[in-house]
Amino acid sequence: MFGTVLIANRGEIALRVARTCREMGVRTVAVYSTADAGTPVVRFADEAVCIGPADPHRSYLYPPAIIEAALRAGADAIHPGYGFLSEDPDFAEICEDSGIAFVGPPAQVIARLADKAVARTLMATAGLPLLPGSDGTVDDPSRARDVAAAIGYPVIIKAAAGGGGRGMCVVSSPADLAPAYEESRAQARAAFGDSRVYLERYLRRARHIEVQVLCDRHGNAVHLGERDCSVQRRHQKLVEESPAPGLPDGVRRALHAAAVRGALATGYIGAGTFEFLVDEDGRFTFMEINQRIQVEHPVTEMVTGVDIVREQLLVAAGRPLRLRQDDVAFRGAAVECRLNAEDPDRDFRPAPGTVERLTLPGGPFTRVDTHIVPGERITSHYDPLIAKIVTWDEDRDLALDRMDRALYETEVAGPGLHTTGPFLRTVLADPRFRAGAHHTDLVERMSASAEPVPTAGH
Amino acid sequence: MFGTVLIANRGEIALRVARTCREMGVRTVAVYSTADAGTPVVRFADEAVCIGPADPHRSYLYPPAIIEAALRAGADAIHPGYGFLSEDPDFAEICEDSGIAFVGPPAQVIARLADKAVARTLMATAGLPLLPGSDGTVDDPSRARDVAAAIGYPVIIKAAAGGGGRGMCVVSSPADLAPAYEESRAQARAAFGDSRVYLERYLRRARHIEVQVLCDRHGNAVHLGERDCSVQRRHQKLVEESPAPGLPDGVRRALHAAAVRGALATGYIGAGTFEFLVDEDGRFTFMEINQRIQVEHPVTEMVTGVDIVREQLLVAAGRPLRLRQDDVAFRGAAVECRLNAEDPDRDFRPAPGTVERLTLPGGPFTRVDTHIVPGERITSHYDPLIAKIVTWDEDRDLALDRMDRALYETEVAGPGLHTTGPFLRTVLADPRFRAGAHHTDLVERMSASAEPVPTAGH
Repeated sequence: MFGTVLIANRGEIALRVARTCREMGVRTVAVYSTADAGTPVVRFADEAVCIGPADPHRSYLYPPAIIEAALRAGADAIHPGYGFLSEDPDFAEICEDSGIAFVGPPAQVIARLADKAVARTLMATAGLPLLPGSDGTVDDPSRARDVAAAIGYPVIIKAAAGGGGRGMCVVSSPADLAPAYEESRAQARAAFGDSRVYLERYLRRARHIEVQVLCDRHGNAVHLGERDCSVQRRHQKLVEESPAPGLPDGVRRALHAAAVRGALATGYIGAGTFEFLVDEDGRFTFMEINQRIQVEHPVTEMVTGVDIVREQLLVAAGRPLRLRQDDVAFRGAAVECRLNAEDPDRDFRPAPGTVERLTLPGGPFTRVDTHIVPGERITSHYDPLIAKIVTWDEDRDLALDRMDRALYETEVAGPGLHTTGPFLRTVLADPRFRAGAHHTDLVERMSASAEPVPTAGH
Repeated sequence: MFGTVLIANRGEIALRVARTCREMGVRTVAVYSTADAGTPVVRFADEAVCIGPADPHRSYLYPPAIIEAALRAGADAIHPGYGFLSEDPDFAEICEDSGIAFVGPPAQVIARLADKAVARTLMATAGLPLLPGSDGTVDDPSRARDVAAAIGYPVIIKAAAGGGGRGMCVVSSPADLAPAYEESRAQARAAFGDSRVYLERYLRRARHIEVQVLCDRHGNAVHLGERDCSVQRRHQKLVEESPAPGLPDGVRRALHAAAVRGALATGYIGAGTFEFLVDEDGRFTFMEINQRIQVEHPVTEMVTGVDIVREQLLVAAGRPLRLRQDDVAFRGAAVECRLNAEDPDRDFRPAPGTVERLTLPGGPFTRVDTHIVPGERITSHYDPLIAKIVTWDEDRDLALDRMDRALYETEVAGPGLHTTGPFLRTVLADPRFRAGAHHTDLVERMSASAEPVPTAGH
């Protein structure tokens, strides 16, 4: 196993990774921007290095500062968390060239799959069903028009280098295509420094279901079941759960098998997620691969009992997978809510501020992953995630009741701060969601006037 | 199901019960003393009633105040938690007479089993092995001397009405018997208002292993496996775990079967715990029955996935058990540490104070049950429990590593306050404990000079 791991991230995921490293007896090096000096991982890690100012392009997205910190601290591995440099093939290659293990797939695998348009083609070759779409990226507006006409409207334009919903535009009619195409390219350029986009048929009434896989360097691959992440707003996940409700067992098994097949076909190594859309008839199509730990990984951990970060580290150190597929047992249901510093009453606009009062839930089958401590300032430099709240119970209904209780007792308050807490409770109470009969358009369809439910006397 | 449950307790267990009630859609009434007005359950519950001053004899131990609050609030059930009135047959009877369901066994069962000397006799009749001991209580010193001589030294004197280690005295030789007998009676009188004691052979090198049972009103009983609570100090549990390490499977099965047999033989109803001693040869003997939710119940919950408080409420409402024995599946290992406001360097003397800084652990497979919030004063009126920290993992070694990480990140600090946190980490590091080769005398045998391990930069 590694002696020292540098964690090239911030927020809850940096602490998440550091916890498992410490449990494994691995020394940890945290890196932090000046804005994050007060976050818990800085104290929790064995060593902490300030790598730059709040601007992520000069700290968490700046490889030289991170590599220098790693070399000085004698780190033999870097865990990139999610976002930032986690799916950057150049960063993975710099790590490899510096003699530091990158906890993720090899640079060349990342490079191949990080281009979502290429990934589509590879998956088609591996026999995974795709939605009709462009053959690779679409580099001028007239070609976009031709492709959209061939696919049929509505279409969705996506960034080839994309993730997290950035650069995505849904287009309902030919008249809207040209401006959307330009908008999507502009967003993609701003977010990823890469304006290339591709097109796909857009399904209005689909479920977002993804499969977690683990693969080692020895040709072994297992899946850890699926997650349903259909509760989204602007392609950003708000609520995630495992297992996916109401999925016919045949579809579930086919999804699992498709993900493992896709992983093996691409020489994937590490923890990865295969994202699919499932339509109302249970037909599924491949969307993309996420080559990192996902924000929503805890629901899978609670259902399977597997510490996914531990498996990532073991695989990155060259160990063969300890788990065979038959060893992976699924128990009960888990749900995760992302508590964000956003104002649902103002179109989920970021509502950062200083946390003055903080009460997080506890008790049975309730997990909280957060980097927020009282007095911490949530800045607009980073994503607005305050805490991930995860509950488990014997079945979905009970897990949702438990989540409602957990949100009831949660308080995050301070000047200027708004959170998605009350909104998440209206999602939990929505009859379509409760019945597991929702699609990715649920949040749009929810009445804007839904009354928030009261909380624990806050 | 009940419409409204009054929780006749305080601290973490009051919040624990309120959480499950809320998840079940049951309205909750909290009662609190003036010292507890700032604890979270007061805000969390749907209604909260102040029932008296800090002195528990005028609040949590004062049935009229509690019954009045229940009747006014329209409660149809009372959950007594642990300690206080939870095993008081008179209180259970008052509840029944007031038309309020008592969440626990019927008053007459409590009355019969709460006398530990009587429980011994009943269990002997049900075929459970006992240590040699007195036949019932021993009411004068000369009789105590005769009984001790017949049993053989060392002997332990125990309060018939006892629990929580109070009134227990170990006697190694005849010369020490008379003063210990008087001391035990005096302690029993002070703690329980009942000076009766009984004698048992004392095993120096035994394991404390207990079995959790659930029984309904319809003659069904299941066990939820065992807990090993051998890490004790003055008969107070400090660390508890499930499953018991290193127990031969035959002994484990025999313990489970004995507990279920004992429960059925006594007409037990509700959640209960059968406590046993297991000697170095794997021979076990019955000690006592705890007729309530136990402090250490979360380790069982994490291993079985069963919410024991929910089962208590369902059974109390007359429902038949949903679980058959075959439905109870055991996964991995869980460990609980009791973080107390005590000073291990001063013989675990209570070290109360005001909590100024509070960091509790989170993340994967880590559960915290606490009623402490920053600014809360831990008073000497109540037990010194600050928080229960519980971790789970695939096996015991991993669960212990996770616990060490959880304790590492825990900080509870304030003027005058000391905690058992650093001491608990030395227990986790003790090679005898790590090997699962420890007995109830572990803490006495641990070197007083053991160096505490450093924590997260506090």
